[in-house]
Amino acid sequence: MAKPSLSLINLIIFIIVTSSLPSLQSKPLPRFLGKLSRSSPPNSERRHQHSKPIQYETRYFPQNLDHFSFSDTPKFQQRYLVNSENWVGPQRHGPIFLYCGNEGDIVWFAENTGFVWELAPRFGAMVLFPEHRYYGESMPFGSEEEAYKNASTLSFLTAEQALADFAVLITELKRNWSAEGCPVVLFGGSYGGMLAAWMRLKYPHIAIGALASSAPILQFEDIVPTETFYDIVSNDFRRESSSCFNTIKESWDALMTIGQKQNGLLELTKTFHLCRELKKTEDLADWLESAYSYLAMVNYPYGSEFMMPLPGHPIREVCRRIDGCPDGTSTLERVFEGISVYYNYSGNADCFELEDTSDVGTDGWNWQACTEMVMPMSSSRDRSMFKTYDYNFSSFQDWCWKELNAKPRPTWITTEFGGHDIKATLKNFGSNIIFSNGLLDPWSGGSVLQNISQSIVALVTEEGAHHIDLRFSTKGDPDWLVEQRESEIKLIQGWLDEFYQEKKAAFDM
Amino acid sequence: MAKPSLSLINLIIFIIVTSSLPSLQSKPLPRFLGKLSRSSPPNSERRHQHSKPIQYETRYFPQNLDHFSFSDTPKFQQRYLVNSENWVGPQRHGPIFLYCGNEGDIVWFAENTGFVWELAPRFGAMVLFPEHRYYGESMPFGSEEEAYKNASTLSFLTAEQALADFAVLITELKRNWSAEGCPVVLFGGSYGGMLAAWMRLKYPHIAIGALASSAPILQFEDIVPTETFYDIVSNDFRRESSSCFNTIKESWDALMTIGQKQNGLLELTKTFHLCRELKKTEDLADWLESAYSYLAMVNYPYGSEFMMPLPGHPIREVCRRIDGCPDGTSTLERVFEGISVYYNYSGNADCFELEDTSDVGTDGWNWQACTEMVMPMSSSRDRSMFKTYDYNFSSFQDWCWKELNAKPRPTWITTEFGGHDIKATLKNFGSNIIFSNGLLDPWSGGSVLQNISQSIVALVTEEGAHHIDLRFSTKGDPDWLVEQRESEIKLIQGWLDEFYQEKKAAFDM
Repeated sequence: MAKPSLSLINLIIFIIVTSSLPSLQSKPLPRFLGKLSRSSPPNSERRHQHSKPIQYETRYFPQNLDHFSFSDTPKFQQRYLVNSENWVGPQRHGPIFLYCGNEGDIVWFAENTGFVWELAPRFGAMVLFPEHRYYGESMPFGSEEEAYKNASTLSFLTAEQALADFAVLITELKRNWSAEGCPVVLFGGSYGGMLAAWMRLKYPHIAIGALASSAPILQFEDIVPTETFYDIVSNDFRRESSSCFNTIKESWDALMTIGQKQNGLLELTKTFHLCRELKKTEDLADWLESAYSYLAMVNYPYGSEFMMPLPGHPIREVCRRIDGCPDGTSTLERVFEGISVYYNYSGNADCFELEDTSDVGTDGWNWQACTEMVMPMSSSRDRSMFKTYDYNFSSFQDWCWKELNAKPRPTWITTEFGGHDIKATLKNFGSNIIFSNGLLDPWSGGSVLQNISQSIVALVTEEGAHHIDLRFSTKGDPDWLVEQRESEIKLIQGWLDEFYQEKKAAFDM
Repeated sequence: MAKPSLSLINLIIFIIVTSSLPSLQSKPLPRFLGKLSRSSPPNSERRHQHSKPIQYETRYFPQNLDHFSFSDTPKFQQRYLVNSENWVGPQRHGPIFLYCGNEGDIVWFAENTGFVWELAPRFGAMVLFPEHRYYGESMPFGSEEEAYKNASTLSFLTAEQALADFAVLITELKRNWSAEGCPVVLFGGSYGGMLAAWMRLKYPHIAIGALASSAPILQFEDIVPTETFYDIVSNDFRRESSSCFNTIKESWDALMTIGQKQNGLLELTKTFHLCRELKKTEDLADWLESAYSYLAMVNYPYGSEFMMPLPGHPIREVCRRIDGCPDGTSTLERVFEGISVYYNYSGNADCFELEDTSDVGTDGWNWQACTEMVMPMSSSRDRSMFKTYDYNFSSFQDWCWKELNAKPRPTWITTEFGGHDIKATLKNFGSNIIFSNGLLDPWSGGSVLQNISQSIVALVTEEGAHHIDLRFSTKGDPDWLVEQRESEIKLIQGWLDEFYQEKKAAFDM
């Protein structure tokens, strides 16, 4: 298996600088945490954040590149992490907990999904973390370079193929382990949560249930309002401080005004302590916007290093700094103070690198967003603290073609997986899915926030952010989080109890 | 749209001679009625069989060749037949009845699925018959010749792609008709029934229910015994006459013995009135075996011309002739008398053409059977009237590679669609599927014959054959058939009632 090459520079850029998509209608495409995708196997330094180290074996499984046609494509090696130390084994029908790998290195997701590891001993479960194709080490065509070469080599990077990978893998592994009678429970967060929910719906014969955390399966077409995402980010700031919200909302005009002045770009470069002279004001705007969105996602009540080292309630800290500047501090200086919480909480950075958008290359999530995962977003005039903008599919489409030779199919996901009228569709169809969400998370707006049926349920917390329930428990966990996890455990236990009862009934017959 | 070229010879061969696969472990691969696939748009003569002519418009829809990757493949024109004369329209949420086209010309299936046409006025329903890709006129790459050129061009002929075709088509049509609120009910027989059931399971957001008639979704891997199919065919003969069963069972040895004699092939040629001298005894054996299997499928209680012009209870007639020969008639002469019911009920044929197996070329079902639709079959020593043989995947695989450059994936269908433990899987998952079967039909052995849940139900008739319930009603319909159809209508009405009630409830909220 070829391993993606990782230069030190890449790592440093990753740690110090978040990245943004090439300017798109002067707006970065909101993304999950996917920029971690290709270039960031956790380094040893970042591993120290885990109070409880995880243990697993790394294995590889030869997968068909194309499950849905019989064209003569080469197989690829799918990486998966496995831990069976707590498994009670096939004879006792020990459960298998499968985390649906998302758009990034699976090791990173494994390390950031402590809930599954903590549950395994309690349930006597096997733990499996299969990696998503085209991420981490699971590269078709032998290497990252070949896999990401062009639209043709990338064409098999789809959610349906990834789900089929999981289905084939677990079916084969169970056969090898003589574990056909063992129930599989799916877990997933963010895009991985979408995969978990979809997998339960499409492959009920393979998994008895799914915990889909922060899974915005409704963030497509016209199912939810396009403003939802940025409205929630904005609310997260406004609830901390309306003056903070207003400062940020005013900053975009200030930015543009200065950017258009003579030597304005140089002025901005200084104000924001950039390592290189700013080329376009939009690059700086994107850099700021990304940070606000990520801050909303990881707005956890305790300090974390999920994306960046951050304090607890990081938006509160951003606003404390923005609001706390001495009188006379300019809007942009305030914004810089605030954003430093995100980009430089450790205080070690002397200057900041904006990723060179001309050199961003193709990353996996860009491809997915430009093909299937077309999530329309806009920024509303009144409720959003971001620049106002409308969703414009046409310019999005043009960008995808120009950058990636990709042709978006904006109605495909809802055709393949549904979404419209989800309550009517699933009220009498399907079972055993938990949609868990925290309302601080901007992705919660596109997720399922109401119970659909007795066993397709929504667990919603007011104070939660992006799939916080999947993280390792900490001493600082608030009560609502402890309770949320207990509810999840009870539901999963219920699925397993039902499975074993039916197994027993069939056996007794 | 290029239309498949049809020579008169092809048509004559089709009408007079059933076809068989190239000899495979000296056994034809059992098939549905799929040999009708490419070369048999119904000719005007055959149309006369319909008491009630059907009316429809023929339209074409541009489909993506590959729904599950974003490779740059050309679109193709999918043909579909549509009739809206009875539709009460979108404002009244008129239902849409969609027949899942199977492995053949859609016109032929439309003409042989009278039930849907008879139901439409009763339900105020739109009728849609989309054609399955790679059959009839729905040819990728512009022509049948190009579509069937090689394994690469054929590679997109899969059930998953066909289901996605249906999903995309109906979604687009509903949008065009402003009929998003109209419920879709699926129908399908045989392979089309498998597609209907799978479509309801995989696309619950697209269709509210499915009538899957004679759909052997369990005829894969080890889910049902491999002998099931030929055991049922054999039982169909034995129940008419044990001497008839015995004569056929003895005939294989007689055939081989004579075939091995000097001038034996010539003798067989004469006994069976073949137009050309027999080249291999196996070709004749295949020709006979095919006929017995098809006779079991179309063992209807009234005269039909579904495959061939046949009397009612055709197996009874075969056995009457076999048993009725004067004393001293040889086993093979008896068999010839019997088989003539199938191949020459009109009495017009002077001699019989065995299809030249060296020239059979690729047909669609061969490809599907050699890729996904791997249905293991064997013939048991005691219960079967056919030659004993075991299932041999290895030689099957070799044949597929040699003939079609196809690599079977024998565990793929159950991975993608399930099948093992179907009752446990679907007891608390899914709804609104009818599996209807007649126990005379050899495909019933691989179908669902027991209720799975309150709304995934099995309707089984003792005397029914291959999807007889989907045929036009006739004056000769026995009571059990009338009742079976009434049960189906009640269930479908129930699905629609529930849909409208929920629609109303949502509207009243």
